[in-house]
Amino acid sequence: MSERRFSEDELIAEIFAPLAGDGAFGLRDDAALLPLGGAREIVVTTDALVSGVHFFPDDPPGLVAKKALRVNLSDLAAKAAAPLGFLLTLALPPDWTNDWARSFAAGLAEGAREFACPLLGGDTTATPGPLTISIAAFGRATRFVSRSGARPGDRIFVSGTIGDAALGLGVARGEAFAERLGEGTRAHLLDRYRLPQPRLPLIATLREHASAAMDVSDGLAGDLAKLLRASGVSGLVELGRVPLSAAAREAIALEPELLSRAVTGGDDYEILCCASVDAAPALALAAGKAGVALAEIGVVTVGAEPPQFLDSSGSIINFSRLSFSHF
Amino acid sequence: MSERRFSEDELIAEIFAPLAGDGAFGLRDDAALLPLGGAREIVVTTDALVSGVHFFPDDPPGLVAKKALRVNLSDLAAKAAAPLGFLLTLALPPDWTNDWARSFAAGLAEGAREFACPLLGGDTTATPGPLTISIAAFGRATRFVSRSGARPGDRIFVSGTIGDAALGLGVARGEAFAERLGEGTRAHLLDRYRLPQPRLPLIATLREHASAAMDVSDGLAGDLAKLLRASGVSGLVELGRVPLSAAAREAIALEPELLSRAVTGGDDYEILCCASVDAAPALALAAGKAGVALAEIGVVTVGAEPPQFLDSSGSIINFSRLSFSHF
Repeated sequence: MSERRFSEDELIAEIFAPLAGDGAFGLRDDAALLPLGGAREIVVTTDALVSGVHFFPDDPPGLVAKKALRVNLSDLAAKAAAPLGFLLTLALPPDWTNDWARSFAAGLAEGAREFACPLLGGDTTATPGPLTISIAAFGRATRFVSRSGARPGDRIFVSGTIGDAALGLGVARGEAFAERLGEGTRAHLLDRYRLPQPRLPLIATLREHASAAMDVSDGLAGDLAKLLRASGVSGLVELGRVPLSAAAREAIALEPELLSRAVTGGDDYEILCCASVDAAPALALAAGKAGVALAEIGVVTVGAEPPQFLDSSGSIINFSRLSFSHF
Repeated sequence: MSERRFSEDELIAEIFAPLAGDGAFGLRDDAALLPLGGAREIVVTTDALVSGVHFFPDDPPGLVAKKALRVNLSDLAAKAAAPLGFLLTLALPPDWTNDWARSFAAGLAEGAREFACPLLGGDTTATPGPLTISIAAFGRATRFVSRSGARPGDRIFVSGTIGDAALGLGVARGEAFAERLGEGTRAHLLDRYRLPQPRLPLIATLREHASAAMDVSDGLAGDLAKLLRASGVSGLVELGRVPLSAAAREAIALEPELLSRAVTGGDDYEILCCASVDAAPALALAAGKAGVALAEIGVVTVGAEPPQFLDSSGSIINFSRLSFSHF
């Protein structure tokens, strides 16, 4: 009888977590701390994009470069770490061209400038496979905001809007629902899929007021489950309070089952965070001053189960799967 | 008329170097410094291995893991930086198995323990292409030993022995010369290809006595040319002083043209360094005490040309190419 292959989460938890050192948080966080001792908090994180997996082979190279950097910056933002710089590893397929390299570098340069996160070094290699971009990004935090600090009674918040990217992926794939959307709606969703917005303006807000935080990259429902599990708690979310863009609302009005995709699909790169009842108003106020909408969507509860999502009638929603997984 | 495609060096120098920030040394060094200000020297480096490019698909997974970590540790050693930890990005092909993952992690754990360099975090993803392993490693240096500090009159040194890995690759490929070697010789060369020895014991030696250093990963001749160019100098190397193992000598005795491959082939992961005439004896002595052989092979000269290699008759050798390039 052949053994079932590990899921992505199992691979990390069972195979690699035993190797984790001090500052790695058992590989259960978005990022790690260099084990420097004392109060010096250098935050390190890495995320890779593979052509055909994380983006389409014909996506504009500059946009791909920007996304590769931004998904890493999103991890830094979630840990309240200000960017210091990044390393780039590029595995180039046989058919790369100088024009591709120039466009990629131009997008990367724009991202580095925009977020004050310079290129520090890297490695280029050939691959017989698809273009593979791996970035390791570094930041400085005065307080590392982990996933494990949520306590029962804390309020649960999420930044921006949820589900646009997952629906944008549907647009990029030319799914049937996308054909029925207005041109502007399609463009908005597609743009949110291609170009996430790292919530770096929230750094001070999170540092001062959040009890726990992470970035939403694999779907709100599953990522919230991870944060609550890391904190040893459970939670309750009112689905009606999950912030949706006008574009997402238009799509969901056409096909109500897209709501589930919005809440469980990946690539949001929004910030999910918690704050005590006392800190919650200050958190929301500070986020507003920083120019980022932060919606209160639920409450942390005692327990070890995944969070429950309630619809407007108070019924519990069962998602067929909580989040995106690569395998 | 179509434009010639960039070489690996041109891609870095022309396309990516303009993006380099403070601490990146114009992408001309093995590693970079985090721009922290003050005397805090956190060294960061990254190197990737692609199946079918950097190792054979049927190489033992534990050995591949060890090599992936060691090539990064070699960069840290060359900058006189003590390892702090690393991040791992793993792009897994469709046919990966749990056994593969277990063996890979076991090798990685052994390497992490042996070199006191813990896993801090990472990213796993699927790829339709070959297994791709990217590691970013971090170290702490009290003096970052750059490539650019060599001065005319400095002595040039290299650690260990040169060329074993390039010849070992020939063994792995089953080239004709390998069939004529003894079993022990073949095993030695193959082992040196598969499992480089990061020269971490040289950290204090380099910090205290070296004017410049780098690790030899793309061939001694080409890498020396890079170091001298970064320093704005030239050099003269006596080929007869380049340290060769007994195994390499056996291969070269059979096929004299393999000497050129030994000096220009990649994957040595030895330390190439320079020291002033005054510091040279102390450098060699300290290396000996640290248990690493360091051979004096030449002298830094005034000039901007690539280094010249002299044979025993004093004639200049012309290598058809100085070093390995991926494209």
